[in-house]
Amino acid sequence: MKKILNSKETIIDDLIAGFIAAENGRVAQSDQNSRVLYRNKKIANKVGIVSGGGSGHEPLFLGLLGENLVDAVAIGNIFAAPTPGTVCEAIKQADQGAGVVCLFGNYAGDVLNFDMGVDLAAMEDILAINIPISDDVASAPKELKAERRGIAGDLFVIKEVAAAAAKGYSLEECVRIGKEANEKIFSIGVGIASGTNPMNGKKNFDLAEDEIEFGLGIHGEPGIEKMKIVGAEELTNRMYDVVKQEVEETGEKEVIICINGLGSTTCLELYIVNNEVNKRLISEGYTIHDTLIGSVCTTQEMAGFSITIQAVTSELKELYDLDAYSSCYFHKEDY
Amino acid sequence: MKKILNSKETIIDDLIAGFIAAENGRVAQSDQNSRVLYRNKKIANKVGIVSGGGSGHEPLFLGLLGENLVDAVAIGNIFAAPTPGTVCEAIKQADQGAGVVCLFGNYAGDVLNFDMGVDLAAMEDILAINIPISDDVASAPKELKAERRGIAGDLFVIKEVAAAAAKGYSLEECVRIGKEANEKIFSIGVGIASGTNPMNGKKNFDLAEDEIEFGLGIHGEPGIEKMKIVGAEELTNRMYDVVKQEVEETGEKEVIICINGLGSTTCLELYIVNNEVNKRLISEGYTIHDTLIGSVCTTQEMAGFSITIQAVTSELKELYDLDAYSSCYFHKEDY
Repeated sequence: MKKILNSKETIIDDLIAGFIAAENGRVAQSDQNSRVLYRNKKIANKVGIVSGGGSGHEPLFLGLLGENLVDAVAIGNIFAAPTPGTVCEAIKQADQGAGVVCLFGNYAGDVLNFDMGVDLAAMEDILAINIPISDDVASAPKELKAERRGIAGDLFVIKEVAAAAAKGYSLEECVRIGKEANEKIFSIGVGIASGTNPMNGKKNFDLAEDEIEFGLGIHGEPGIEKMKIVGAEELTNRMYDVVKQEVEETGEKEVIICINGLGSTTCLELYIVNNEVNKRLISEGYTIHDTLIGSVCTTQEMAGFSITIQAVTSELKELYDLDAYSSCYFHKEDY
Repeated sequence: MKKILNSKETIIDDLIAGFIAAENGRVAQSDQNSRVLYRNKKIANKVGIVSGGGSGHEPLFLGLLGENLVDAVAIGNIFAAPTPGTVCEAIKQADQGAGVVCLFGNYAGDVLNFDMGVDLAAMEDILAINIPISDDVASAPKELKAERRGIAGDLFVIKEVAAAAAKGYSLEECVRIGKEANEKIFSIGVGIASGTNPMNGKKNFDLAEDEIEFGLGIHGEPGIEKMKIVGAEELTNRMYDVVKQEVEETGEKEVIICINGLGSTTCLELYIVNNEVNKRLISEGYTIHDTLIGSVCTTQEMAGFSITIQAVTSELKELYDLDAYSSCYFHKEDY
């Protein structure tokens, strides 16, 4: 494994220390639990927003700490859910007197530990509600949407719920927004080459040199089928065809899209894919309200990408449009 | 080569089309030259800012089109300078009545073509001045700073000059800022694994499984030495030692830093490196004014990273602090 690390034992601590250093005073580490980071700015009576999950997907989840975004994150080990105690502490740090919404990818370990974390918080009289995000259409059929995994769609759902909280929505309203945002979001990914788990040097899957995995999950979970590599237009159309019907069934004609790189897929390729997605959506009569391109939800240096399409109501669109800032490229300097 | 493309012939056109689609009306393509993109918002009598260079380094350079950032970009083929005609058209599109500054990495082909582009613009009565950026300390000794290559340091120099222009500085003052910003910026990179040229499938260098190249350039230009891979702390200290004296000699005690991934190096590793850089800078008595972490100046899926340190005067710091926005992660929605 060719990675620049100190030791396996200190990976998460080194990551957190490096992140806090980069944040320049905007975030703090809980003195009760080193795996909890929170924003220093609080807003009285705003619904708190917690996110979190396993490490190894950076810039998720800690990169979402920001203005009109996430108030506290619960950080797990590499590809492992945060503990219930970590979740509970994140909820406490995010609580600003109006309850807390926890948003995270729908994986069994995360659901279990977030549920226990919410129970622990309740014992300290803080009301928190979990919304597992389930956008990966390859992981379960549409009748079982609630069983789907969460991948890059996390970002849009979190941005919208966080905006609702920032606009003063109640806990109940934030939960309604989160459920609606999750109902209307659909992602499909492909794996091109494996990443490496930094804890043990293991690759998470094997593919031949001319082969890709259609529908692969972000931890290398098996997809729908292995196929020969094809050009951008053909691949994008195959991916689009998988989500087409469900997007149509929302009844909305306006969409937000994300082309997410899983690690080592180049920005060049992501823009080329975006061009194909764009042509297809426009030919199907959709208006694209906004587009997010980048490696925003990764699995180490895995090659591959996902296409996320969220059909937006006017309310979701208005929430999405609220300015939000977190640390990446050139951001607002003070937030 | 496992990349998702259509054909070699259409790579740049597909990239540009995908980028324009993602920008949602904020940028336009010149109808005189398809390799020139420019911002639709103009500000009368502001100094225009042009950047550009070879493709393959995305999100550079087109990702810098933004509010208080770059007004027009000149786009070359993969790893090739834009033509003089492309540079001239970018200058014309960036011109808002107060002259234009062109900022680009210091490579022979870019310098030649930007010089010719400036000459062509002069024939149409537009005054443009070139500032090649030269931050890579591994590429020439300090007595020959002006011969050094430009790598991730481009970003800070461009942000500061663009801020000067946005604040109404004259062309002459913007050039003074650009030269000072470039004098005070120092980068050092390491190569860990090669990327692949999407035009021909060739890797740009070879390294053994336990070997890294210290001081490698972003196109795979040879570095200072090949060495065995070491831990993050040891490597970071070796890199810091190369720039230490020059940073000291600026006489400034405040710095801005960038930890840039070259493509497939994970965000996790970049934060771990940042932690080491941070410890070292603080122990040397510096104040870190701001930190930028990400794969912001890449070479396809090359593994490796660079550390950029800019020593900032109070004027440079004030310019750097001006809010600026371009398309990445969650940005300002309307700019």
